[in-house]
Amino acid sequence: MTEKTPGGYTGKILRVNLSNKKISVEKPDEKFYRRYFGGTALIGYYLLKELKPGIDPLGPDNKLIFSSGVITGIPCAGSGRNGVGSKSPLTNGWGDSQAGGFWGAELKRAGWDAIIIEGKAASPVYLWINNDKVEIRDASHLWGKATKEVETQIQDELGDKNVRVTQIGLAGEKLVRIACILNDTTHAYGRNGHGAVMGSKRLRAIAVRGNQAVPLANPEKVREVSRWLVDNYKVLSAGMTAHGTSGGIPGLNAAGILPTRNFQEGQFEGYMDIAGETMTKTILVGRDNCYACPINDKRVVKVGAPYNVDPVYGGPEYETIGALGSLCGVNDLKAIAKGNQLCNTYGLDTIETGSTIAFAMECFERGILSKKDTGGIELKFGNAEAMMTMVEKIARREGLGDILAEGTKRAAERIGHGAAEYAMQVKGQELPMHEPRGKVGLGIGYAISPTGADHCHNIHDTGFAVEGGGIAGLRAFGIQEPLSPLDLGPAKVRMFQCVSNWQHFQNCALMCMFLPFNYNHLVELVSGVTGWNTSLYELMKVGERALALARVFNAREGYTAKDDIIPDRLYTAFKSGPLKGKKIGRGAMRQAIQTYYRMAGWDPKRAVPTKEKLQELDIAWAAEELDKAALKK
Amino acid sequence: MTEKTPGGYTGKILRVNLSNKKISVEKPDEKFYRRYFGGTALIGYYLLKELKPGIDPLGPDNKLIFSSGVITGIPCAGSGRNGVGSKSPLTNGWGDSQAGGFWGAELKRAGWDAIIIEGKAASPVYLWINNDKVEIRDASHLWGKATKEVETQIQDELGDKNVRVTQIGLAGEKLVRIACILNDTTHAYGRNGHGAVMGSKRLRAIAVRGNQAVPLANPEKVREVSRWLVDNYKVLSAGMTAHGTSGGIPGLNAAGILPTRNFQEGQFEGYMDIAGETMTKTILVGRDNCYACPINDKRVVKVGAPYNVDPVYGGPEYETIGALGSLCGVNDLKAIAKGNQLCNTYGLDTIETGSTIAFAMECFERGILSKKDTGGIELKFGNAEAMMTMVEKIARREGLGDILAEGTKRAAERIGHGAAEYAMQVKGQELPMHEPRGKVGLGIGYAISPTGADHCHNIHDTGFAVEGGGIAGLRAFGIQEPLSPLDLGPAKVRMFQCVSNWQHFQNCALMCMFLPFNYNHLVELVSGVTGWNTSLYELMKVGERALALARVFNAREGYTAKDDIIPDRLYTAFKSGPLKGKKIGRGAMRQAIQTYYRMAGWDPKRAVPTKEKLQELDIAWAAEELDKAALKK
Repeated sequence: MTEKTPGGYTGKILRVNLSNKKISVEKPDEKFYRRYFGGTALIGYYLLKELKPGIDPLGPDNKLIFSSGVITGIPCAGSGRNGVGSKSPLTNGWGDSQAGGFWGAELKRAGWDAIIIEGKAASPVYLWINNDKVEIRDASHLWGKATKEVETQIQDELGDKNVRVTQIGLAGEKLVRIACILNDTTHAYGRNGHGAVMGSKRLRAIAVRGNQAVPLANPEKVREVSRWLVDNYKVLSAGMTAHGTSGGIPGLNAAGILPTRNFQEGQFEGYMDIAGETMTKTILVGRDNCYACPINDKRVVKVGAPYNVDPVYGGPEYETIGALGSLCGVNDLKAIAKGNQLCNTYGLDTIETGSTIAFAMECFERGILSKKDTGGIELKFGNAEAMMTMVEKIARREGLGDILAEGTKRAAERIGHGAAEYAMQVKGQELPMHEPRGKVGLGIGYAISPTGADHCHNIHDTGFAVEGGGIAGLRAFGIQEPLSPLDLGPAKVRMFQCVSNWQHFQNCALMCMFLPFNYNHLVELVSGVTGWNTSLYELMKVGERALALARVFNAREGYTAKDDIIPDRLYTAFKSGPLKGKKIGRGAMRQAIQTYYRMAGWDPKRAVPTKEKLQELDIAWAAEELDKAALKK
Repeated sequence: MTEKTPGGYTGKILRVNLSNKKISVEKPDEKFYRRYFGGTALIGYYLLKELKPGIDPLGPDNKLIFSSGVITGIPCAGSGRNGVGSKSPLTNGWGDSQAGGFWGAELKRAGWDAIIIEGKAASPVYLWINNDKVEIRDASHLWGKATKEVETQIQDELGDKNVRVTQIGLAGEKLVRIACILNDTTHAYGRNGHGAVMGSKRLRAIAVRGNQAVPLANPEKVREVSRWLVDNYKVLSAGMTAHGTSGGIPGLNAAGILPTRNFQEGQFEGYMDIAGETMTKTILVGRDNCYACPINDKRVVKVGAPYNVDPVYGGPEYETIGALGSLCGVNDLKAIAKGNQLCNTYGLDTIETGSTIAFAMECFERGILSKKDTGGIELKFGNAEAMMTMVEKIARREGLGDILAEGTKRAAERIGHGAAEYAMQVKGQELPMHEPRGKVGLGIGYAISPTGADHCHNIHDTGFAVEGGGIAGLRAFGIQEPLSPLDLGPAKVRMFQCVSNWQHFQNCALMCMFLPFNYNHLVELVSGVTGWNTSLYELMKVGERALALARVFNAREGYTAKDDIIPDRLYTAFKSGPLKGKKIGRGAMRQAIQTYYRMAGWDPKRAVPTKEKLQELDIAWAAEELDKAALKK
């Protein structure tokens, strides 16, 4: 409570140009870290400053930035996450994504806050970061191989089994726009197609080894928060440990919000077959974790022939089970586990992949695609075999897979015949496994998130990670009452703004959102690590700043309020289930989005922070980038 | 850090109708307190809900609301302040003011958070609050008497020397628009003319006795903050203890910002004669304090014949010394001490009184007023005798005093002949003793404060009460750099907005602004008292909400952006001193104010929060009050 600002927080950023092999180091000052922190805001700073509008996301002018946060790699659960950003090949706009595991913490413990990858290698390479030593190494022999094989081979050739590897797979190499990047072959930076960006740079992997403890200004403060988690997680996170993220499937199904058959329905008759509890009883063979975390909510599964699912690829999380399962009408958990393994083997985002296959299934059922298009596959909802085959085909860009590899928006344009109606995407990015018709605030999030439809910028009505559960944590922001999930009035918009700014901060702090921390725990952690006399106010402004930078980036690329929309299907009501007949009001949603713009201090037409809001966020320079966009028009 | 929201904070509000003598009690729920807290925001809620636009501030329809805060009366220094509000007879708009001492804490310890005074007594009365027992008592025998005499008499007739009395004096009785209300005859609710409102209701005093300890959800947390102050004040507040608030006069004079001769100059040749250090060496006989405070920065002075200054009236603070001293060109500290005693005896705001006399002195020197007008007084700058006489005349509404009793704005209208040019006021309220030409951010504050020119809604560039001094504390808000006092750009507006919202929160918390607490100490105190898992974010929103309610009140009374101005004189440069030739740019100030509107989410024409901003502040209902104003036009 009484610590002084030591003026001492420092960090290092690594810049690697793959075209000319130049490696350099930058050391921003403390003010930089306090303003841009890490993750989304830090990435936003560099992308806005260094990318020209209109560049090809898959060309050498794009930059790929990995970034940890100020509190990454500390001795506290949840601090192992990492962020990545670039101009997205999926949205042609702002792209950022986060992943858990150990790689982020390892990077931080190697002394690095971020890596900026520029240019394009002449032939496949990987990067080897051993604390201060950085090396660009040949990866020709790794190109085309399965992710686990590559990881093992890199560890072998570097002679250290503890080397942490982040990498793309075959899908990234083949510039599949829904390709992801994977930490440790199981933790995905899934959204926005960064795998393709990494592939376009011919960078197969980044191997890291670090053994420098992150300096702590006030170790006792960090220990106190860490201890709180250890003392409380067994009660607060019991469900997560037991059945993982898919433990909630029965509840979602009962509420009528389990995305089913390409969002045509909200209930899936086979929901219990794919639920976390069922997994626990059948194919689960272990529980895995991320850096410093005792919760063990990650699944490890094993399935014998003919699926042959190997535990080294972990197991499917809720998003994966939803996307490859209910969304495709598939109730075969073993097939889903296989689909998950294929995605991790080839480096495909499971959400995008499942969504794209579900889209193709609907097109097939509606006669827009035929067996001729699918190469003879009966691409119907519920066909587990077809689902698994299509994952392979997308990764290899084979047949219809080559079209689906572009994501639903581009695929629908190629397919034509009204297929666009069934592409469940926003700004080119597919909807994750959360149904706005039963939690309408989420719809605002899908429309407004700078990354396109994204469940990490969203409101779950009663808030994430809140002390005592439910609304208690949001009270720290002065939000005193829970609201109906179907409410779309100004109070909901207010709650959304609050949660959205906080989520953006989480994407800067790279702290796990599944831990039962309350908001003030993070203030304590930041203060404990840096010595800053900080506050929830300052951290919320970091989040708001991150969002602002991302929206300015999009505006510079030509995005306006017209792009802040959700798919038409969400405005139709379900024909059955608890939400039968209830639809999101088109006018109400339009009004809510307009209210958000004005509440957030955004220009309601350009859908971007006003000059004065940017000044208030201490990024007045970003207004100049907006002017460039205006000139471009 | 881990406490739960107990849902248990409660309070009581006393409502007294002096017309029909009805006394009632209201018990708002916890949500009310968390939203409106106390002071400005609580007062704003009631005034907006219960007053009709356009009422006469000195008529029975006005209401006078005393309010403590959620953390008032706790065992921690700084928690003895109290707020008062009503429609101001000086500005015909929003009025609120705060005072220190012991009365606020006593009221809280009697079990009350606020008192709403309605109507008008048929004959003079006083209110006697003895814990739960409340009585309206006759005050005919006290009417017209000196404040100290009244205080003693009330204590005598109630048979308890520990009864705390807040009261008006002769000036309030006579509806002098610059009359104040006084706690313990020495701590003034000075600004906005609330003394006249209390006088108009024929309420001479409110006597309070309370012996209920304020319940603390987490006593150890409160003790920790309290202990921090005890451990640190001797170093951090040494100057305040030694020489009080006027210890800074030599520094202000050296910087050229000591308001002199009605703001014509920024340096006063007699500055050392009136400085705190000189007071310490000459007339100081004691140091006084407020509730629970060890700092003892209040002055107690004694002066013999012919002044006969009695220590029971304390001694002059900086504002008083500036207003009755340098602003009137008076370097006679004994005369200033006498003027201070007269103001406290009659219940006059020393700032308004000094400013009004200085205005009259300039009018006299410029020939706008003559000896005929002044009743033979040579009303020139530097005439200490004239200053003292005019204080008397204003309190008694005698001769020219009857005109000056209206404040400079109305007096200038009555006097005519261009006198308005010399009325240094904003919205009808006189400038306090802080010179915007040397700290231009203050100019934004004078223009924008809903109370008119007010140093309690202002920015002192490097911030108040900051940990480690200077900018360190503001870092908790993400403000990382000090700015030149002459800077008027967007970064200054940003800093202003931050400090202004915080100051408004201080006026809700009623925590002393002179204590060396940092922002997070107050978060700890609020959490310690209430058990709320609160944050600096939530408290800042309380402050922003308070300001919003006050601005809505003003808009409903017809105020617009055109009224957010500062006196023309401030746009002219000093002819000598360190600021010679430096003037505030008219265009730059206009721009800064417009930037503020947009940054704060205000409609730039009506100069009031937009509907969406009000929704974000959880006071959507206030937008309806704005609509009433629009209809009124």
